[in-house]
Amino acid sequence: MSFLDPREQLERIKFGVAEFINDEDMLKKLKKGKPLNIKLGADPTRPDIHIGHTVVINKLRTFQELGHKVYFLIGDFTAMIGDPSGKNTTRPMLTREEIEENGRTYAKQIFKILDPEKTEIVYNSSWIGKMTPQDFIKMSAQYTVARMLEREDFTKRYRSGTPIGIHEFLYPLTQGYDSVALKADVELGGTDQKFNLLVGRDMQGSYGQEAQCILTMPILEGIDGVHKMSKSLDNYISVIDTPKDMFGKTMRISDDLMYRWYELLTDITANQLAQLKTDVAEKRKHPRDVKVNLAKFLIKRFHSEAAAHAAEEEFHRIFVDKGLPDDVPEFATEAGEIGLPALMAKAGLVASNGEGSRLIQGGGVQIDSEKISDPKLKMNLKTGESFVIKAGKKKFAKIVVR
Amino acid sequence: MSFLDPREQLERIKFGVAEFINDEDMLKKLKKGKPLNIKLGADPTRPDIHIGHTVVINKLRTFQELGHKVYFLIGDFTAMIGDPSGKNTTRPMLTREEIEENGRTYAKQIFKILDPEKTEIVYNSSWIGKMTPQDFIKMSAQYTVARMLEREDFTKRYRSGTPIGIHEFLYPLTQGYDSVALKADVELGGTDQKFNLLVGRDMQGSYGQEAQCILTMPILEGIDGVHKMSKSLDNYISVIDTPKDMFGKTMRISDDLMYRWYELLTDITANQLAQLKTDVAEKRKHPRDVKVNLAKFLIKRFHSEAAAHAAEEEFHRIFVDKGLPDDVPEFATEAGEIGLPALMAKAGLVASNGEGSRLIQGGGVQIDSEKISDPKLKMNLKTGESFVIKAGKKKFAKIVVR
Repeated sequence: MSFLDPREQLERIKFGVAEFINDEDMLKKLKKGKPLNIKLGADPTRPDIHIGHTVVINKLRTFQELGHKVYFLIGDFTAMIGDPSGKNTTRPMLTREEIEENGRTYAKQIFKILDPEKTEIVYNSSWIGKMTPQDFIKMSAQYTVARMLEREDFTKRYRSGTPIGIHEFLYPLTQGYDSVALKADVELGGTDQKFNLLVGRDMQGSYGQEAQCILTMPILEGIDGVHKMSKSLDNYISVIDTPKDMFGKTMRISDDLMYRWYELLTDITANQLAQLKTDVAEKRKHPRDVKVNLAKFLIKRFHSEAAAHAAEEEFHRIFVDKGLPDDVPEFATEAGEIGLPALMAKAGLVASNGEGSRLIQGGGVQIDSEKISDPKLKMNLKTGESFVIKAGKKKFAKIVVR
Repeated sequence: MSFLDPREQLERIKFGVAEFINDEDMLKKLKKGKPLNIKLGADPTRPDIHIGHTVVINKLRTFQELGHKVYFLIGDFTAMIGDPSGKNTTRPMLTREEIEENGRTYAKQIFKILDPEKTEIVYNSSWIGKMTPQDFIKMSAQYTVARMLEREDFTKRYRSGTPIGIHEFLYPLTQGYDSVALKADVELGGTDQKFNLLVGRDMQGSYGQEAQCILTMPILEGIDGVHKMSKSLDNYISVIDTPKDMFGKTMRISDDLMYRWYELLTDITANQLAQLKTDVAEKRKHPRDVKVNLAKFLIKRFHSEAAAHAAEEEFHRIFVDKGLPDDVPEFATEAGEIGLPALMAKAGLVASNGEGSRLIQGGGVQIDSEKISDPKLKMNLKTGESFVIKAGKKKFAKIVVR
């Protein structure tokens, strides 16, 4: 197997990262001309991922393209313990079966991005679970209390008097020991994982191994362009969203965020991204088309090329051809029966059911560009469907049924 | 089996203790009318004990006399690990064989005080060593970092920036878990062990057991009556000292210290001790006789009744009958050949070899009450022997050959 020049590899590896430690160690590793072990740890209690989570997975793909091997590590050891204090009844304790089911869910999602040939899914219970008490003591002796308390959340909790269970000091150590077990050359994580990744780097030194490089990826902003993408803020795209939803949500992001998403979610290079920005700035490309390509990239990745084309065509049919704006606001609602005027009122298109009825009777309401004339129309909303209501000349709402 | 009234038991248990936690819990336990589990942990790396160490063992004996069962716990789990950080090469890592050998040494020593029928020697590796990683996490979750840092030595080290390995937080937890494994009702220790004993009390609560009472014994002062008895200060009586040495060393302690030793090393009761003090104060008893009885008690305990009588007789022959004072100072020296005048000078009995020779020639020197006349006498000192040199009318030295 032949590899790219180490400096070229390093450039691709570092594109878009939040922090990388460090160039010197990495070049030394790359110069060996062998496939390196790239590690990413995942929490098996939350296997459903949104595209914010795929930022690091996308970087793993870069490593694979450069010829390296990915260990996708499922941290099942702690998940099988649940809440060891017995005080927090909400913390789930997963069974072997649930963990394996979640592992399959992960696999299904990550293999939309990663090359299965160069990926090994591993479970840390297979080595941590076999440690003897002596091994545990030895592992704990490799790190000091003071250094552990330097982790930001521990510092805050210790200062504010919020209890820290001693087992919480052991978790970063087991995570660090995972790097020893895997002989990891690089470990990836979000910026919030930096401390834990450094523990792995140190632990390898303690166990006589070459220390891993660590690479943190930025946290992706959600559709709103302001907050971190998260389910609770409802500003996310799930990797299992329909092509239509992926397309619609992507079209509504700002131009600035569009470039950010290109950087973190696609396989674009630094040079290509710079070119794209120049083309838009010099009006050789229209931002809407650049966004369409981004949307198509995501749909192609998480669904298929055909689905990407279909979504583009539908977008043209509903929005572009019918003169709808790109950024129709979304209104999420529950499945079930509801009268159209009531739905319009709920979505904020009209002030009351009565106003909605009158607008329908006056011929001012369209659903997906079809004029509606029955003011008593009952809508039977089904989970997963979505459509656009046009009320009057300027008001639009995309109804998404949950 | 019948037991003493709980309140009477409590009174005997608490006599001489530094701290006891607490009466209420203890009475509740005693009222069950069943043999309680009494725990003492011992460090298997230092099986040679001096009588300072027997203070707690003496208290264990009281529990046995009251009908309770003693678990003499050898903390071999940590001893077999040695120094887990790999940084401290001086910390011994004991083999199974060494631990068992040390266990036998302990047994030989403690059974001079304890009733073997009511004593079980246990090794904590037999349960700690079998814990799974999950068990370890669960155990660690029962205690917080903040509370552990409240232990005095940890507080000091943390504040001064002296590293504390995370495994050092696990040791008090394993020690506490030992109480869970033994279902201990009472744990004993020196005052320096209070924190660790309290961890055991808490851990039992966490594991759904009734919490153990804790009992700390004061640290015994050495022969000098000032410092804690210790080998490094050479102010100790070893349990394997010869009867002659035990007798001699005991006779040299102060009257105040004598009462303290009675309290902590013999089976005297509070009332008997008070009576003894009154008898001496009112001159019904001579302090020297009271001290002789203390010395005989110790020799009887660690050797035999016959040895106690023999030592008393020898004491009378050498000291009392020959008019020697009780408190002849000791001078320790190495084995080997040395001229008597030189030895006298080393021991501080004369200012120079010449003065020593002249004193011998003048008939002013005795060894064990025998007059010496040869100023060129070569002494062939053998390890373990001891004798008293009298130089002139008022100077004495007990020579102890190491």
